[in-house]
Amino acid sequence: MAARSAPARPPRVPDPDAADGPPGDDRPRRPGYRRLSVEQRREQLIEVALELFSSRPPEEVGLDDVARAAGASRPLVYRYFAGGKQQLYEAALRSAAEELAARFRVGGPGTPTEQLAGVLDGYFAFVAEHAAGYGALLRGGSVVETARTSAIVDEVRRVALRRTLRHLGVRAAGPRLTLLVRSWISVVEASALTWLDEGRQIPADSLRDWLVDEFLAMSAATAMHDPQTAQVLGGLLALERPDGPAARLAERLRGMLPAGGAA
Amino acid sequence: MAARSAPARPPRVPDPDAADGPPGDDRPRRPGYRRLSVEQRREQLIEVALELFSSRPPEEVGLDDVARAAGASRPLVYRYFAGGKQQLYEAALRSAAEELAARFRVGGPGTPTEQLAGVLDGYFAFVAEHAAGYGALLRGGSVVETARTSAIVDEVRRVALRRTLRHLGVRAAGPRLTLLVRSWISVVEASALTWLDEGRQIPADSLRDWLVDEFLAMSAATAMHDPQTAQVLGGLLALERPDGPAARLAERLRGMLPAGGAA
Repeated sequence: MAARSAPARPPRVPDPDAADGPPGDDRPRRPGYRRLSVEQRREQLIEVALELFSSRPPEEVGLDDVARAAGASRPLVYRYFAGGKQQLYEAALRSAAEELAARFRVGGPGTPTEQLAGVLDGYFAFVAEHAAGYGALLRGGSVVETARTSAIVDEVRRVALRRTLRHLGVRAAGPRLTLLVRSWISVVEASALTWLDEGRQIPADSLRDWLVDEFLAMSAATAMHDPQTAQVLGGLLALERPDGPAARLAERLRGMLPAGGAA
Repeated sequence: MAARSAPARPPRVPDPDAADGPPGDDRPRRPGYRRLSVEQRREQLIEVALELFSSRPPEEVGLDDVARAAGASRPLVYRYFAGGKQQLYEAALRSAAEELAARFRVGGPGTPTEQLAGVLDGYFAFVAEHAAGYGALLRGGSVVETARTSAIVDEVRRVALRRTLRHLGVRAAGPRLTLLVRSWISVVEASALTWLDEGRQIPADSLRDWLVDEFLAMSAATAMHDPQTAQVLGGLLALERPDGPAARLAERLRGMLPAGGAA
């Protein structure tokens, strides 16, 4: 009942550490335990929850596990998250989502593919720093955001879609261009999750270069089916260097794909 | 408690319709209500559950909603799914997943891209026939299957990955080729979900052709980074017709991508 009626954000608690447990509380403490400020404690609980939610299915994580891992009492956790586990889970995912969305700023110097590579560097840095939280975030959503999905990760995907389209200079994207960008975002996510899953076998900068090439290749294939994508890609390529990724991709594709009889 | 200890498949019930409700039961009945066999009733409950789970978040669907929509009593639903909602939810997703996996058979006549187009036709036919169930299936998983995800949709993804690699003649796929195929599968899923979400604005056969082109383009970009993918793509292209999708793609890319200074 409490979980359903809980507000999205818990009210601030005046002096929560006073409820940290009775003096004789013998719950396990983490080494280096110390009293935390309200904000520090809230952040610590969220961080601990993210770790737990990303290593086990959410239904197998109990509030007691969070309390134990945080070196706190169950009542203390409830003081901060009156809505219980569901509220803590959402706060944890939202925290990861907000930080991730903040990385999607594009602009600055460089060609479009150099800027894209810069955004991907920031993205993989985030994924590496917050491996646990990122896994939880992605596993909490479906393959792609739609009008009917409401996972927290979908907010991040909408931000990523909007910023990518703005980066491409597009004001009103048609269905095929939208599908292209959404698809590429799902490739980025799939590659990051696979990267984490497989112990980072492929170096991040190599994945970044691959994703830039995939963006160009996927855009070129979509441009065959959609005038808007063709126009956007044409504008983007006009800004590229003659020795940039687009030129290298074209050169290699020329050698790889068949000579072509028709068309 | 019951939900946790419930078996994956409920035991067969000798005469469940005897429990369909007392004679004076005034629960709403669907028009054309009739007594169903055990198997028919089980399938009907699963079908009704899939419809409900795909139109609302699972946590907002109650067992009473399923009973009402099926024209059945709550005790009847419990007779078939003693584990309650969680068990019914899993049975519904598994049902959709099994049927989908059965569509991934490749082979028969035609070039590799013609066979791929045939598999995609079967896939979009499934998605169209089971729009509700498919949405529920995909929204129940993350962006891609990994060793740490256990969503029911991941079983389907593993089947799709295995069959696609077999189709490509690959016995042991390296990390980049695996990532390519997984990524393409996520593009297929993203496009199907977007297709459903946007009222099927883009015709299915046009999406199919786009996905074949995306497979070729994504493979070509990956081949630049990975000798195994280059070898597999080379073998595939050798079997293509001179006027097939690969040739058309190469022709169009030649005109679209820059002339290339380096490389």
